[in-house]
Amino acid sequence: MVSNVITLSSDFEKQSQGIGNMEGAIYSINPEARVIHLMHGIPSFDINSAARTMETIYNMPIGFHVCVVDPGVGTKRRPIIVKVKRGDFFIGPDNGCLLTAPRLLGGIEKAVKITNDRYMIKPVSPIFHGRGIFAPAAGHLSLGIQMGEFGTVLEPKDLAPAPYEEAKVEENLIKAKIIHINKFGSLHLNILQQEWDKLKVKLGDRVEINIGKKKIEVPFSRTFGDVKKGELVLLKDDYMRITIALNMDSFAEKYLVKNGDKIEIRKT
Amino acid sequence: MVSNVITLSSDFEKQSQGIGNMEGAIYSINPEARVIHLMHGIPSFDINSAARTMETIYNMPIGFHVCVVDPGVGTKRRPIIVKVKRGDFFIGPDNGCLLTAPRLLGGIEKAVKITNDRYMIKPVSPIFHGRGIFAPAAGHLSLGIQMGEFGTVLEPKDLAPAPYEEAKVEENLIKAKIIHINKFGSLHLNILQQEWDKLKVKLGDRVEINIGKKKIEVPFSRTFGDVKKGELVLLKDDYMRITIALNMDSFAEKYLVKNGDKIEIRKT
Amino acid sequence: MVSNVITLSSDFEKQSQGIGNMEGAIYSINPEARVIHLMHGIPSFDINSAARTMETIYNMPIGFHVCVVDPGVGTKRRPIIVKVKRGDFFIGPDNGCLLTAPRLLGGIEKAVKITNDRYMIKPVSPIFHGRGIFAPAAGHLSLGIQMGEFGTVLEPKDLAPAPYEEAKVEENLIKAKIIHINKFGSLHLNILQQEWDKLKVKLGDRVEINIGKKKIEVPFSRTFGDVKKGELVLLKDDYMRITIALNMDSFAEKYLVKNGDKIEIRKT
Repeated sequence: MVSNVITLSSDFEKQSQGIGNMEGAIYSINPEARVIHLMHGIPSFDINSAARTMETIYNMPIGFHVCVVDPGVGTKRRPIIVKVKRGDFFIGPDNGCLLTAPRLLGGIEKAVKITNDRYMIKPVSPIFHGRGIFAPAAGHLSLGIQMGEFGTVLEPKDLAPAPYEEAKVEENLIKAKIIHINKFGSLHLNILQQEWDKLKVKLGDRVEINIGKKKIEVPFSRTFGDVKKGELVLLKDDYMRITIALNMDSFAEKYLVKNGDKIEIRKT
Repeated sequence: MVSNVITLSSDFEKQSQGIGNMEGAIYSINPEARVIHLMHGIPSFDINSAARTMETIYNMPIGFHVCVVDPGVGTKRRPIIVKVKRGDFFIGPDNGCLLTAPRLLGGIEKAVKITNDRYMIKPVSPIFHGRGIFAPAAGHLSLGIQMGEFGTVLEPKDLAPAPYEEAKVEENLIKAKIIHINKFGSLHLNILQQEWDKLKVKLGDRVEINIGKKKIEVPFSRTFGDVKKGELVLLKDDYMRITIALNMDSFAEKYLVKNGDKIEIRKT
Repeated sequence: MVSNVITLSSDFEKQSQGIGNMEGAIYSINPEARVIHLMHGIPSFDINSAARTMETIYNMPIGFHVCVVDPGVGTKRRPIIVKVKRGDFFIGPDNGCLLTAPRLLGGIEKAVKITNDRYMIKPVSPIFHGRGIFAPAAGHLSLGIQMGEFGTVLEPKDLAPAPYEEAKVEENLIKAKIIHINKFGSLHLNILQQEWDKLKVKLGDRVEINIGKKKIEVPFSRTFGDVKKGELVLLKDDYMRITIALNMDSFAEKYLVKNGDKIEIRKT
């Protein structure tokens, strides 16, 4: 067994037995699997948040990572496995949600379309591939079944595109996008910290932020407690990206923004 | 050890330490148990949803299944164990929530009332039998303790009735009931797919649905993506039953229905 | 290995991958750890509820207990380990959330400030010590690393104080405080059952309760079902304290109270 760590993520939230059903499917295949429920609070059908969640695998042990945010389940969208250079396997729908993590994990090594029903749990419900196809694939992969056994090879360029590109610094400006809003109402952006560093903003300096029709000034800080309760901060987040938040309050509620919204950050 | 899979379901939601307390209770009895949190998002006191959740054990490994939706805790309602023909044990309150799953798992083989305090964790709180009685019973059963050790045998006919019967096709009509509304707002009905098939509706055909004072026409489809975003679908769900939903939207919010409501489906 | 039980609690709710990230951090250190997610629904930044959650360890196997309710993360507040006489280790921020449980577990045996970065997962994000410091410390402690290896000893009196003291009976009165409101809307108070017993209220007798500007009379009962649906009850809760609730309804919503509010109970 390469690794016995299998992570499950979905937009099923707390209210679905689908989470337990996927875990049961895995144990029926690999009783020694170590299932981690990474994140089931992805907002319904939110491919941005799903992709961002998969990125956080960067901090996890190498393993098999299932993501079930799958508005196209049962249609022609393909079930896929994507292997990355670090050694992890990502399993889920071909809707882009698996394609941002590979950028942080050495790139895609191989991708296959899952077609071999020998590795599915039948009957496969056309509205829940998580239990019938994705979780079982993770179980079998964790037992050492080779990727080629699951189906036909796909070229990375033929996969559905990732939901966001990486924002780049253009002179003193970054045109970014919100890719996740957490439960505290903090925004996470498609700006990697190494890209942010190119802007050369000093800790404590303020940047100008345009969001919707609002313009605000926000200090670049180290942690929330660097400002008073309720005040704005821009920080390096805990997952290699940049976050904008209110200390102990909800930015998203106060400024009425939603996932996917554009945001511009300017060094003044 | 027959099986080491123990599932826990409840209406405790995310906010209760009771979930972790039950898991701890189990490990203190059987350190080798494999606990799966099947579903803790059952709406408070909702016996319909609890019963429907227990049905989904159909897709799970054989094991010991605890359900704690227990408005009568500490009163005269009995704590029970129900063994089904497939080999699973269901443990929980005698309020009907354990009695629909056996219909799908070969029927009830035996039922006992739990009275032997040797298998309880004391002191038993009169408001939380999940930790004091049900989870410990699952732990002991998984170690091979015989069912008869827990208490006196009960006749199945003397148990509190299941919260719903199976809807039946009457000519071109099915009078059904909502037994679960999931987080996406989709309705799940007390209609088994094998019963539905007797209505002989073809994929793509529309049926007439009466719900409250509203009458709507809904196409019988294979998956959500067969219709446009926001449109109505009637599907075979992923747990042997029939579901009515809006693709990527909430049926329950749009039509203001609640669990337990009646619904009539007519083939035209 | 002393124990392999590690519990995780936080205010991350369902929506954060931080929960899975902490679990992954632990397995990367101790693959044999048994992680129990005790409670991630602690309201954001609520030190009262965090402290009360840690108390429920009283019912859990001896182990290593991480609490991440940490509004001061990354500031001067210290990361600490507190060992109690029962044998458990509590790991988290020095903000008082770890200091009520020891009262129930024999008292504090030793406390250290975590400074040795050999037992951290680097880089440590200044906004998420759960993954970088606390969870790893639990992992290493569970492998038998001695507490003194983590950093310098702290005197218990120098730790940030617990968020609540124990309410005491003064003649016929108890001046108490709400320390937790559960998902059913029931209030849990800083009154231990052994203290309550000194008031000598008989089951069925009514006490007078002052909360905000309201005065209500509530019967002391054994369980919820002792009163009708929607009626008031005062009970011994399932975690050694006193609770005030409505049977199958939300006290907190009806009486508009919040965690931390004062409440007076008078025997008449």
